Amino acid sequence: MLKTPAYAALDPASPLVPFTIERREPGPHEVLIDILYCGVCHSDIHQARDGWGGAIFPMVPGHEIVGRVSRVGAQVTRFSVGEAVGVGCFVDSCRQCPSCNAGEQQYCDFGMSGTYNSYERNPDDRRFDKSRPTFGGYSTQITVDQDYVLRIPTALPLDRAAPLLCAGITTYSPLKHFGVKPGDRVAVVGLGGLGHMAVKLAAAMGAEVTVLSTSESKRDDAIALGAKDFAATRDGTVFKTHAMRFDFVVDTVSAPHDYNAYLNLLKVDGTMILLGIPEAPEVVSAGSLIRKRRRLAGSMIGGIRETQEMLDFCAEHGVASDIELIRMDQINEAYERMLRSDVRYRFVIDLGTLRHGTG
Amino acid sequence: MLKTPAYAALDPASPLVPFTIERREPGPHEVLIDILYCGVCHSDIHQARDGWGGAIFPMVPGHEIVGRVSRVGAQVTRFSVGEAVGVGCFVDSCRQCPSCNAGEQQYCDFGMSGTYNSYERNPDDRRFDKSRPTFGGYSTQITVDQDYVLRIPTALPLDRAAPLLCAGITTYSPLKHFGVKPGDRVAVVGLGGLGHMAVKLAAAMGAEVTVLSTSESKRDDAIALGAKDFAATRDGTVFKTHAMRFDFVVDTVSAPHDYNAYLNLLKVDGTMILLGIPEAPEVVSAGSLIRKRRRLAGSMIGGIRETQEMLDFCAEHGVASDIELIRMDQINEAYERMLRSDVRYRFVIDLGTLRHGTG
Repeated sequence: MLKTPAYAALDPASPLVPFTIERREPGPHEVLIDILYCGVCHSDIHQARDGWGGAIFPMVPGHEIVGRVSRVGAQVTRFSVGEAVGVGCFVDSCRQCPSCNAGEQQYCDFGMSGTYNSYERNPDDRRFDKSRPTFGGYSTQITVDQDYVLRIPTALPLDRAAPLLCAGITTYSPLKHFGVKPGDRVAVVGLGGLGHMAVKLAAAMGAEVTVLSTSESKRDDAIALGAKDFAATRDGTVFKTHAMRFDFVVDTVSAPHDYNAYLNLLKVDGTMILLGIPEAPEVVSAGSLIRKRRRLAGSMIGGIRETQEMLDFCAEHGVASDIELIRMDQINEAYERMLRSDVRYRFVIDLGTLRHGTG
Repeated sequence: MLKTPAYAALDPASPLVPFTIERREPGPHEVLIDILYCGVCHSDIHQARDGWGGAIFPMVPGHEIVGRVSRVGAQVTRFSVGEAVGVGCFVDSCRQCPSCNAGEQQYCDFGMSGTYNSYERNPDDRRFDKSRPTFGGYSTQITVDQDYVLRIPTALPLDRAAPLLCAGITTYSPLKHFGVKPGDRVAVVGLGGLGHMAVKLAAAMGAEVTVLSTSESKRDDAIALGAKDFAATRDGTVFKTHAMRFDFVVDTVSAPHDYNAYLNLLKVDGTMILLGIPEAPEVVSAGSLIRKRRRLAGSMIGGIRETQEMLDFCAEHGVASDIELIRMDQINEAYERMLRSDVRYRFVIDLGTLRHGTG
């Protein structure tokens, strides 16, 4: 086993602290990755504080991982030492169900093995091995099966590529799956980590993007990110002026909000895509869906094949995250700032600061 | 003008009574239809009792109309005298918006002219003419533009064809639009006028249909109508035993019910189609949609082209409504029975009884 420096939450109430984990030597089909950067996702906070229940402690968060291959198993064919690679929200799945067979491992019938706060699987029956929790990217290295590793195209800056592994694919996948095409009008609700990627990606796909945000303060950023238009939602007039305007509404908001107000912004046959999970269910009026044949859909991250497609798309279109690079020891402060929405638009940890004892 | 016997609601609180309306002589593009049969839709009761607000009295309900052409305008090319024809939920629309241009007149940007409880349009600007309310099929004749008239295939019995004009197209359209195909598993929630058509049509399309109904009492009917399986929902176990089982859930229920329970019956990428409008909005959990990329959609009747397609499909597959034929003067009693769900599965008025003074 490989002793590995990390940062961990030891319980839901305490700040993250330095912690040592053990990584396994890579098996025949696995690669060992030196982690260079790890994005900080809102769900890291949720899970570290056990906001969804069932959290596994100690917990090493982080599922927006970029690094370089440092060692490969004997039968690894897809990667070689030194290559820039990424790991996203999961590191394994059952590999047998219809979703896994379709390359949509995120919807695995038996549940994916999350990159952290989850469990490795038994090789024989592919079931979770409760004795082996997964630990994420707030650490200096990780061992992963090659089939769950992504290639980072050379055109992408490695630090700004990290958030693509979750925020990027979470927005790219539904835009592709639900068929956004050039000229479509896309409203992006909420301009945070997910929202800023949705703007960039939808614009790169040729859509005409409008950002809907509670306050005026993000107007300039929205336009700079690629939006054609911006509307503040606080005074409510936008729900009249923009009624029946959009082909898609991409809703990245987890705070409570009125789905019906946003559904009514859709044209006939429009689709509202939910990416955020408010703590309580929201109400939906059947009439709003029925009268214009609208759809309310959800989407969760994306499969390995589609994540690679997204990374290649980003390289081709010059898309990467807007980030603030931090030291590992700034993580608790970063959490506090994220809870105040004070980040434009993603914190990324420089794991060199942990490796070299400078963070 | 043509004096025409009808039955009307004079206000929201009184029973329907005999009433005389005037129909116009057919214009150059119009046909005059002798009405033979008219189905009784639940929305007739809602509107006659002003359940949705804004009702126009006196009101002559009825939008499941079948009859024979008795007179044609000079430039009518599509129909000739004596032909069996139908009229559904609308008799006109703006004819200029994207939905009308796409043949989806039911989603007209300016609102369709409902067959009753609505208004005719000015020929010049296509706007509603508030001086000319529309009157529906509880009458012996009606004048309609040929572009809003359907051809009833000879293979269909005319009385049992009448409910196809609303209940039939309301269920056929979403099954086609959302892509039900042979072998798909379709759950139909609620076995009333809409539900019994959904079972017949989905089965005719080759789907494996399961009926979900509150009580066991409709099991035999469900199977006779073409369902492979039946499950009573009252004790709740079905929501565990049938979890993640269906490609589609067709929800025909207007009474309050838990959308989330039914959403969880869908597979990955499954679609729940709402056809009924509960009086209050229902709650939806974003997580249920997100974790399996499910969709909650609505659909409203269908366009003229698709309604003709549905009628031809029914003729080809031997599909028609199960009905109870009534006299015109039994309409108030029929309403009372419908409110107790005591009809298998649609009342159809024999307008001969009004024409000949025997009803």
